[in-house]
Amino acid sequence: MLAEIITIGDELLIGQVVDTNSAWLGQVLSQNGITVKQITSVSDDQVHILQALAAAEERAELILITGGLGPTKDDITKQTLCTYFNTSLVFNTEVLADVEERFASFGKTVTPINRKQAEVPANCKVIRNKSGTAPGMWIDKGNKTFISMPGVPFEMKAMVTNSVIALIKEKFKLSFIYYKTVLTQGIGESDMAELIEKWEDSLAALNIKLAYLPSIGTLRLRLTTHGDNEAMLRELVTAKITELQALADNYIYGYEEMDGQKETLQHIVGQLLLESNQTLAIAESCTGGFVSHLITSIPGSSAYFKGGIITYANEIKTQELSIPAAIINQHGAVSSEVVELMAKEIKNKFKTDYAIATSGIAGPSGGSAEKPVGTIWIAIATQQQVITQKFLFGGTREQNIERTAQTALNMLRKHIVK
Amino acid sequence: MLAEIITIGDELLIGQVVDTNSAWLGQVLSQNGITVKQITSVSDDQVHILQALAAAEERAELILITGGLGPTKDDITKQTLCTYFNTSLVFNTEVLADVEERFASFGKTVTPINRKQAEVPANCKVIRNKSGTAPGMWIDKGNKTFISMPGVPFEMKAMVTNSVIALIKEKFKLSFIYYKTVLTQGIGESDMAELIEKWEDSLAALNIKLAYLPSIGTLRLRLTTHGDNEAMLRELVTAKITELQALADNYIYGYEEMDGQKETLQHIVGQLLLESNQTLAIAESCTGGFVSHLITSIPGSSAYFKGGIITYANEIKTQELSIPAAIINQHGAVSSEVVELMAKEIKNKFKTDYAIATSGIAGPSGGSAEKPVGTIWIAIATQQQVITQKFLFGGTREQNIERTAQTALNMLRKHIVK
Repeated sequence: MLAEIITIGDELLIGQVVDTNSAWLGQVLSQNGITVKQITSVSDDQVHILQALAAAEERAELILITGGLGPTKDDITKQTLCTYFNTSLVFNTEVLADVEERFASFGKTVTPINRKQAEVPANCKVIRNKSGTAPGMWIDKGNKTFISMPGVPFEMKAMVTNSVIALIKEKFKLSFIYYKTVLTQGIGESDMAELIEKWEDSLAALNIKLAYLPSIGTLRLRLTTHGDNEAMLRELVTAKITELQALADNYIYGYEEMDGQKETLQHIVGQLLLESNQTLAIAESCTGGFVSHLITSIPGSSAYFKGGIITYANEIKTQELSIPAAIINQHGAVSSEVVELMAKEIKNKFKTDYAIATSGIAGPSGGSAEKPVGTIWIAIATQQQVITQKFLFGGTREQNIERTAQTALNMLRKHIVK
Repeated sequence: MLAEIITIGDELLIGQVVDTNSAWLGQVLSQNGITVKQITSVSDDQVHILQALAAAEERAELILITGGLGPTKDDITKQTLCTYFNTSLVFNTEVLADVEERFASFGKTVTPINRKQAEVPANCKVIRNKSGTAPGMWIDKGNKTFISMPGVPFEMKAMVTNSVIALIKEKFKLSFIYYKTVLTQGIGESDMAELIEKWEDSLAALNIKLAYLPSIGTLRLRLTTHGDNEAMLRELVTAKITELQALADNYIYGYEEMDGQKETLQHIVGQLLLESNQTLAIAESCTGGFVSHLITSIPGSSAYFKGGIITYANEIKTQELSIPAAIINQHGAVSSEVVELMAKEIKNKFKTDYAIATSGIAGPSGGSAEKPVGTIWIAIATQQQVITQKFLFGGTREQNIERTAQTALNMLRKHIVK
């Protein structure tokens, strides 16, 4: 089945916002057996939107539209849909109730301008928005379907994940797609490609597609196949993943099932700590709070995370974690000695089972010939020992912070599962 | 003048690659007075590319195309351009010389497949590529111009910056575009729209467009206008922004100029601390390290950020920040009393000029009737005083953490500028 994506908003055309919605939608649709034919970004201009709708309708069966649903005057998608389908806006009490509930949760009452969020084209079926005030709209026109959604990424994503995909599957007969994602850490895209080259070559004959999905610090490998026999597809992919484990086991930290939640290292580490009833403290220098942020982004993390200290200045390392100034002077703050003490001291002070410590040169300045930007020390303290490891990432500040955090979490994970 | 961007490649449609080229081109073109009418992403499919070219030619004078110029079989842009313009490929010795020079610089000779990079449509003017082997191609058709460029971002960007913009200015007389963005925090999109309704209505007569650009915790307002008289456009927008200040001063934390960097609250707070030679410490509970992460994401933040403590468990609040257990028991960790002490204690302990403290219920669990999810206390300690403020955000865990951080940074900013 063919789909097209239309994203609406001047901010996309002047490049103030990168259109990440389309890529995300493209991924989700392909994973569900729907081929995206074209992505079109147009301005907040009625004539232009009407043109784009007509062109997409000619080529595709499913047209997904994002953006232009805010309550402000520059947002004209709803009125334009009315013009396109020759209908008018009607007041939807169900949407109003959602908007009212949302405002009540902030201790506010709905303003007149926000009441307008409850107006929808008369020919649409409302898709409820649990993360914002603008409802989604499903409009059938013969065998074609138009779905209009908010442009705010997290609202759109929640709507697609929770409702839209199921609704599409109800209406259209899609061939069965099965995919599973292998999560790796500690190896880059091209090194992985070399490591698994022969294995990758063997996938084509089985009709399995491999996608490399790199992000800073981690690399996900998605195996996708489609057909009619669900059980056979699962078996095929599982067998190839077993082969992959033999090649890349040292880098694999987890798996994501098609219907499962997105697994991150902080999820997996959190789950391991929760199951073993153990606790964690974190001492951060170069990561400046980012490792703790990842850990505490998981609901319920207070069950295993006691807290942390961000010892950004050297004097704070001495004051809070009793690291002798002489050791810092002798070896530098970015050293095995300092990061080992950081981990050991915070573990003792916070009385936890594990501790993580980071110290490095995130950049862009602060590097030297001996310790260039991207030099990172990580320590993991357990009940038995403290291990430290050095890395040379050498990226941008953002990359160094992110890669350090991912690497530290994976080091801790390996120690817990050992 | 109107332009359109066509990006070619299956990887864009399945979402494996986010189309950042278009946003970058959109920025550069708008800054040069060219209005981007549409961005279209299509697959590596001849019929589809031909359709997209024809549609773009109808709407725009300038059509920029990226992608599909590699030497492998899946790249078909050059052959498709020949079909579209009813011409054929010819061998260009100048391009071959460039390719040969490039290969020589790696100590290699040109392979047969790479010799094909020197074949270009007979009707094109070659745009040399100094960062890769695929040349750019400039094709005039009456008063319309087509420019085909490589999809590799750094090759395309170098080509645009070094050659394409100058060539466009040679051929077309461009009108000037000016925009400026007002950064606000602490007010939502619809509340802002109500607050500035009359002011917004006055923009149309002046040919100024207003865009609302919300993200979690902040809202940016962009004013855009175009014409021939650059000085007058700047003056017009500046005058309207002065009027806006009178209405919304309490929410405005900064501005972004057209050619300036993206400004965030952590940039602005960092700059203020740096200029005044003052320091900061942070005590975080519900934000779990995220405020510190934002602060330390700025290069050079070690000049003003000494460090922080993440007092996630109550016992850590008592142990590290001397908050009496009795006070936590009496008022709860999410209370004015506790957050005030957190800010006061970390400021004294870390000997800084300012401190931020956060304590709240990020959710999704942990809420009660009295303190529902999204109840947040923030404290700012200065040399003179500690002020605390309560917020009821009531969003998801991610939203509550992000909004708390943005709000805390803005509270600190207001205190520093006072």
